[in-house]
Amino acid sequence: MHESLRVNGSRLERRLEELARIGALESGGVCRLAFSPADKAGRNYVEGRMRSLGLEVRIDAIGNLMGIRPGREPGPVAVCGSHTDTVGTGGRYDGATGVLAGLEVMETLNEAGITTQRPLAVISFVNEEGARFMPDMMGSLFVRGDLGIGQARAVIGIDGTSVGSNLDDDTFPGSDDFHGFSFGSYLELHIEQGPVLESEGIQIGVVEGVQGIRWIELNLEGAAAHAGATPIEMRRDAGYVAGAIAQYARRLSLEIDAQRATVGFLSLYPNLVNVVAEQARLTVDLRNPDSARLGEAERRLHDFVEQTAALERVRVRSEKRVDVAPVVFDARIVGIVEAKARVLGVSSRRMISGAGHDAQIMAGLCPAAMIFVPSSGGISHNVREYTSAADIECGANVLLHTLLELGASNSGTDHAKFMQFNGLTSF
Amino acid sequence: MHESLRVNGSRLERRLEELARIGALESGGVCRLAFSPADKAGRNYVEGRMRSLGLEVRIDAIGNLMGIRPGREPGPVAVCGSHTDTVGTGGRYDGATGVLAGLEVMETLNEAGITTQRPLAVISFVNEEGARFMPDMMGSLFVRGDLGIGQARAVIGIDGTSVGSNLDDDTFPGSDDFHGFSFGSYLELHIEQGPVLESEGIQIGVVEGVQGIRWIELNLEGAAAHAGATPIEMRRDAGYVAGAIAQYARRLSLEIDAQRATVGFLSLYPNLVNVVAEQARLTVDLRNPDSARLGEAERRLHDFVEQTAALERVRVRSEKRVDVAPVVFDARIVGIVEAKARVLGVSSRRMISGAGHDAQIMAGLCPAAMIFVPSSGGISHNVREYTSAADIECGANVLLHTLLELGASNSGTDHAKFMQFNGLTSF
Repeated sequence: MHESLRVNGSRLERRLEELARIGALESGGVCRLAFSPADKAGRNYVEGRMRSLGLEVRIDAIGNLMGIRPGREPGPVAVCGSHTDTVGTGGRYDGATGVLAGLEVMETLNEAGITTQRPLAVISFVNEEGARFMPDMMGSLFVRGDLGIGQARAVIGIDGTSVGSNLDDDTFPGSDDFHGFSFGSYLELHIEQGPVLESEGIQIGVVEGVQGIRWIELNLEGAAAHAGATPIEMRRDAGYVAGAIAQYARRLSLEIDAQRATVGFLSLYPNLVNVVAEQARLTVDLRNPDSARLGEAERRLHDFVEQTAALERVRVRSEKRVDVAPVVFDARIVGIVEAKARVLGVSSRRMISGAGHDAQIMAGLCPAAMIFVPSSGGISHNVREYTSAADIECGANVLLHTLLELGASNSGTDHAKFMQFNGLTSF
Repeated sequence: MHESLRVNGSRLERRLEELARIGALESGGVCRLAFSPADKAGRNYVEGRMRSLGLEVRIDAIGNLMGIRPGREPGPVAVCGSHTDTVGTGGRYDGATGVLAGLEVMETLNEAGITTQRPLAVISFVNEEGARFMPDMMGSLFVRGDLGIGQARAVIGIDGTSVGSNLDDDTFPGSDDFHGFSFGSYLELHIEQGPVLESEGIQIGVVEGVQGIRWIELNLEGAAAHAGATPIEMRRDAGYVAGAIAQYARRLSLEIDAQRATVGFLSLYPNLVNVVAEQARLTVDLRNPDSARLGEAERRLHDFVEQTAALERVRVRSEKRVDVAPVVFDARIVGIVEAKARVLGVSSRRMISGAGHDAQIMAGLCPAAMIFVPSSGGISHNVREYTSAADIECGANVLLHTLLELGASNSGTDHAKFMQFNGLTSF
């Protein structure tokens, strides 16, 4: 049923242009840092669209915005969504695509006069980026109950203001907390933020999960020495050890299945051409969709660092800055996304998300999955971020038909059972 | 003859303390940047000491200061010396040791009533460090004729002033250029500035030559990418290539005889934990006493950089910033230094200077060599620079007896023949 239904791609393109004008940068990108006036204006735009589509609007105490489209009967809600905040010099598509495509799905259903069995909803989470206030994915963490409202309000941002003062300065917060809300499922359409789909010429990424992430910060302390006068065997060269670690990160990436290891930050002291480096500071970003392999990568990294530093008589201080476990998305929803892409006649491939998303937080609360559309050149968090209107339309159609099936389903997730299965006890 | 003659070590220690008060830093080090008031005051102190020892003082147009002690007959002069300028946060021993030990030798000969056959002299070169005005070793380059007075005066320093204006502001320059002066030999006592002598418990370094130096600056241009979302095989990671080069520099050091290779400077852009580096800038400091091996190191480095960068699709821009050929000191003088250390009963070893010195410039003008004394911890160009009074006394005694032999020699170098031998035609 409804197999021939399609979203209106040019309307969706227009909505994306309208939203991109809010917080627009001259360079073509967007700045809607979380809880800023531009962010609030963007969310007002979304709220206005929700109301004009006749959705029931709910706003929780931290500013998460939900528009609900009732079904023929109540029960677990098939939710889709994303976020509309951006990094400081962000693009037009990161987050906005998922929220506006969700609204386009609702508008398409309205026009077709379709009422699903279960309610549908579009949610726009606050502060997914974490660029102004840490942690990122703050909105979904609040919904899941990992972050209390007091905790969240107390967070101080890069400009020295608190989340709380920014909430009080405008009309953001409602009184809701969604904790009693029956999330039947959560589905997020998002740009890939990587180069895989484009380079393989594939339109849809069927996202099976999100990589685990560990950030290791290494501080190396050797001894400054004259580059000409100091024999190699007498050196305690922190720069050499840092270089060897950057090289070893690549080796881990090649030797451990699905491993990504990156040294993106590296600084030397005193950083002079003819002085053996006394200190080096570097970070290793480790990602793997498999928890055990991620652990193996970290163990092997530490072994290598320890051995190499000991041979060079360089002292090491190591700190784990981030440790997020991999997330595996719901197999049933992943299967539906894949099947719908096939029915729609668009190419797809299964993949793992390299970046973090609200969907990985929501996966602890209800069955969840994601749909990716290509990112031109793999560029994201950058004003040059671009995804074609055709690719977005394609993703929105997969979203439409997956939501139709999730909303049609009589078998809402038994919430208590799901939480038990996921080892979660209370929120 | 005079085998039992010894310098007065405690007097020499006192002179070093007196000079260290000029331009003294609170931290214990010294700042006598070339051509600064403190540098001039230091040179006035040396000039005063020369005059009080009855030496004939000559000052050339750039401020090089010579104190000559006549021999029983005229002829080629056995010159010793060093410099008294320092880097911005320098130590008390770099340069000052050689100049004041030379003066101590003269005072010792005065007290003993000894007149050598040939004249002796102590020279203090200006601007050896090059910390304020490039090039370093400016004073000896002027003496050798590689640098004209007009050229030297036009040099603009790190503070925006010219060498010329600094010369005019005080009474530095004489009218001399030493170009007609008959340099019979040049011998320089200096601290090692490296850790070898101390770590081996040896008192005297018999310096056979100075390493050649090449500085290679590498600019790598890859592509910024998301560390989570970008598969390894799609990366153009400038940070990985930079790390691999730092690692390879160590391999060159281990595989090529007497090679030292150092990556002391390395910076990434944008230098963020979760972004594959778009750009890397790094330097490789290559040193080897053997010209052919130095060339081999540079060739192998370039091959490695080219191959590694090509595989990663990273563009490379390479520039050679410094290229100084190795210098081999005069075998006869080196032999005398070694023999005198043996006669004096102090331990010695032959070695190569890792740092640059006026002696390597003077080696193009007359037979030259150097004597090293230990540097505590190998530390130099640093306020913590330290050499014990006993080690300095030991070095001064080797200087004394080597100069006595060089001054006794009837066989002054035939200047024209020497220059021909060294491939030099005119100054």
